[in-house]
Amino acid sequence: MALSTQPYKGARDFYPEYKRLQKYLFSVMRSVVERYGYEEYDAPILEPLELYLAKTGEEIVNEQTYQFVDRGGRNVVIRPEMTPTVSRMVAAKRQELAYPLRWYSIPNLWRYERPQHGRLREHWQLNVDIFGIENTSADIEIIQVADALLRAYGATHEMYTIKLNDRRLMKYILAEYLNLTDVQQQLTGKLIDRMNKMEPAEFAADIDAVFAPSQRESGTDEKLFELLKVKSLNDLPEEIKSKDEFKLLDTVIKQLNDEQIVNAEFEISLMRGFDYYSGIVFEIFDNDPSNSRSMFGGGRYDGLVGLFGVEPVATVGFGMGDVGLQEFLKVHDLLPSLKSETDAYVVLIGDVYEAAQKAIKDFREMGLNLAVDMSGGKADKQIKSAVKKGILYAIFIGDNEIADEQFTIKNLQTGEEEKHSAQRIVSIIKDYRNE
Amino acid sequence: MALSTQPYKGARDFYPEYKRLQKYLFSVMRSVVERYGYEEYDAPILEPLELYLAKTGEEIVNEQTYQFVDRGGRNVVIRPEMTPTVSRMVAAKRQELAYPLRWYSIPNLWRYERPQHGRLREHWQLNVDIFGIENTSADIEIIQVADALLRAYGATHEMYTIKLNDRRLMKYILAEYLNLTDVQQQLTGKLIDRMNKMEPAEFAADIDAVFAPSQRESGTDEKLFELLKVKSLNDLPEEIKSKDEFKLLDTVIKQLNDEQIVNAEFEISLMRGFDYYSGIVFEIFDNDPSNSRSMFGGGRYDGLVGLFGVEPVATVGFGMGDVGLQEFLKVHDLLPSLKSETDAYVVLIGDVYEAAQKAIKDFREMGLNLAVDMSGGKADKQIKSAVKKGILYAIFIGDNEIADEQFTIKNLQTGEEEKHSAQRIVSIIKDYRNE
Repeated sequence: MALSTQPYKGARDFYPEYKRLQKYLFSVMRSVVERYGYEEYDAPILEPLELYLAKTGEEIVNEQTYQFVDRGGRNVVIRPEMTPTVSRMVAAKRQELAYPLRWYSIPNLWRYERPQHGRLREHWQLNVDIFGIENTSADIEIIQVADALLRAYGATHEMYTIKLNDRRLMKYILAEYLNLTDVQQQLTGKLIDRMNKMEPAEFAADIDAVFAPSQRESGTDEKLFELLKVKSLNDLPEEIKSKDEFKLLDTVIKQLNDEQIVNAEFEISLMRGFDYYSGIVFEIFDNDPSNSRSMFGGGRYDGLVGLFGVEPVATVGFGMGDVGLQEFLKVHDLLPSLKSETDAYVVLIGDVYEAAQKAIKDFREMGLNLAVDMSGGKADKQIKSAVKKGILYAIFIGDNEIADEQFTIKNLQTGEEEKHSAQRIVSIIKDYRNE
Repeated sequence: MALSTQPYKGARDFYPEYKRLQKYLFSVMRSVVERYGYEEYDAPILEPLELYLAKTGEEIVNEQTYQFVDRGGRNVVIRPEMTPTVSRMVAAKRQELAYPLRWYSIPNLWRYERPQHGRLREHWQLNVDIFGIENTSADIEIIQVADALLRAYGATHEMYTIKLNDRRLMKYILAEYLNLTDVQQQLTGKLIDRMNKMEPAEFAADIDAVFAPSQRESGTDEKLFELLKVKSLNDLPEEIKSKDEFKLLDTVIKQLNDEQIVNAEFEISLMRGFDYYSGIVFEIFDNDPSNSRSMFGGGRYDGLVGLFGVEPVATVGFGMGDVGLQEFLKVHDLLPSLKSETDAYVVLIGDVYEAAQKAIKDFREMGLNLAVDMSGGKADKQIKSAVKKGILYAIFIGDNEIADEQFTIKNLQTGEEEKHSAQRIVSIIKDYRNE
């Protein structure tokens, strides 16, 4: 029986055309985050299971990770996210590193889940983190970077909304304003996280099941439902607005708005799944009605590095997946048409492979990326091959061309042919490349 | 108990300084192979186990792979090499793809083996393959690319030797010239592959154990031992030299030598481990006595794509690992000192974070990569941080600087300080970056 040619379920083969798109996405990521002084790091895709048991949400570890026992008896996981890894790396060199530390990475991550629209088993995720800054300048910078990224792909502020909340504010609201027990806070938080995916009646029933009869009698549930209707920080009750937890978030949103990030706003239902968030959290939503969902997000997680037995380090970061990003760019018609890295296709006329080597070498030394067709096929078949590969120019080399040192260059889109010196050809092609 | 901060055994954490080196290695790879018209592809790191059972050497699959059963009951492997994957991808689009097809990838690969000098459990490997060319121009081009790569890192031909052999020539020698049975050919081939790692007496004894008494009586073993002493194709017996299998290899080596690749030579003991090679094979050896070993290699494997139930495709390729490459560059003092991607470190004087935003934004828009220190620490502590990060310039911004629109730039290596307009500072830094 012949072997299957399919890639592993829920993962993608990157044929060159698709890989070119990925490279474009990554190169924009790199140039934007490096503009803000972030340095790239990386780590092995395998990590010990313990790393995820500590602080990641339980669902991910128990149901969605690729875990196995290696030949040495170690419980290992193919990383489902990068945050535990980067925390481990910072902890390992806690004392040596210079803060603020700005790091980024574009790892591939694996989750065992049912492949669906916008969710795959393998995806790549830009991770951007700043370590060592406790004040809100770090939160603001991270959101600025996320915003600058989308704009670098050509997006405008009308296309997306940056929704913010603060875990500390929610903690205050649940624990003090509503006076819930620890367990109730936990359950209520998870329900609020899922609120927008539930029917209102279902949500209300689930909340009421969490609350004690006395709480329902005293109207705690109604108090919560009222709060959850609030669309702006201004509309929160004065009792909440007098708290530091409120002022912090209010300042961050105002400052973002002041710095032309007009699409940053408060969203009380925003919790984010992972347990490790400890402060401001944010998510960026696509405004297009056909794709109106959270694209990516992040927040402050000051506790993770400390789990490794070193002094904790204040941390803010976000992770942006390539699948959701592509979806966003597609919906908003922002995917560029990308040129082939190959500048020209050399079509050999007759049996001149060896004789053409010098000319080919010269072209390459002048900076051209050249693919040579040595199939011995007919010229029109060779040209078809070039067109299929998305290469714009063909350069013909035969005995006459080698003798005259004049080569025919053909634009395969327009069909236009011209005969020129090698230097002239190189300059025509470089002009096109730099267009 | 605190979590361990160590990376998985035999794999590497890439802190930014080390990642920078990897990025340099990869960018040279990309620019060289793209100069020859190769296009980048990629694929998932997980593949079905069957893919490797088909043609990879057995030792690797049974003892050295990371295999496990996924949650859906599939037997999967973290890829130990890229060749089966790329063959799968070509087979999947056998009819649609335009030949010759030139593809490359820089995947990470995993092998469960004892970590040792130059061998790690995770490594990255440049894979370069050309599909669809049966004649030797493909073998020659692939070796040219391998050679161009090493030279692009600054290596000279004195530093390494390209050793070649041909599986077809060895097949002829073992099957016809020595008249061995199929099993004897197989065993003898494996012994020759290991010859240079064995004592001569041990090798001779092992060979004699493979041969039948009648073969030993008729001197077949001596005939083989004589052959294995041959250092040049010219010195092979005339009977062998009259064969097409000889002429093919002879032509390839001569043509490489003619094209200034003077360090290409015949090596009769070169077999290469994988079963799938079907023609010319080559390996590149470091000439430095302290590191005299095979760095990387490749060859022709015309049969792999056909295993997927499609018409076979002639293929030649090689894989170059990052660990061996780094070792080579280190031994020959070819590792460059790399500049930080961050052009300058902004030191804020006083509480000017918000007031400085405009100047910082302007610098970034003029093309500078800037890290801003908002730690609120003393200026000399901030500068220490910049030096630790390997950033050359500091730009000081305080109230006066913002009012005057003149900023102090400090070269942290020389200690030199100057006050300039933003434009002038940008041009000083860009001059340094392009040095």
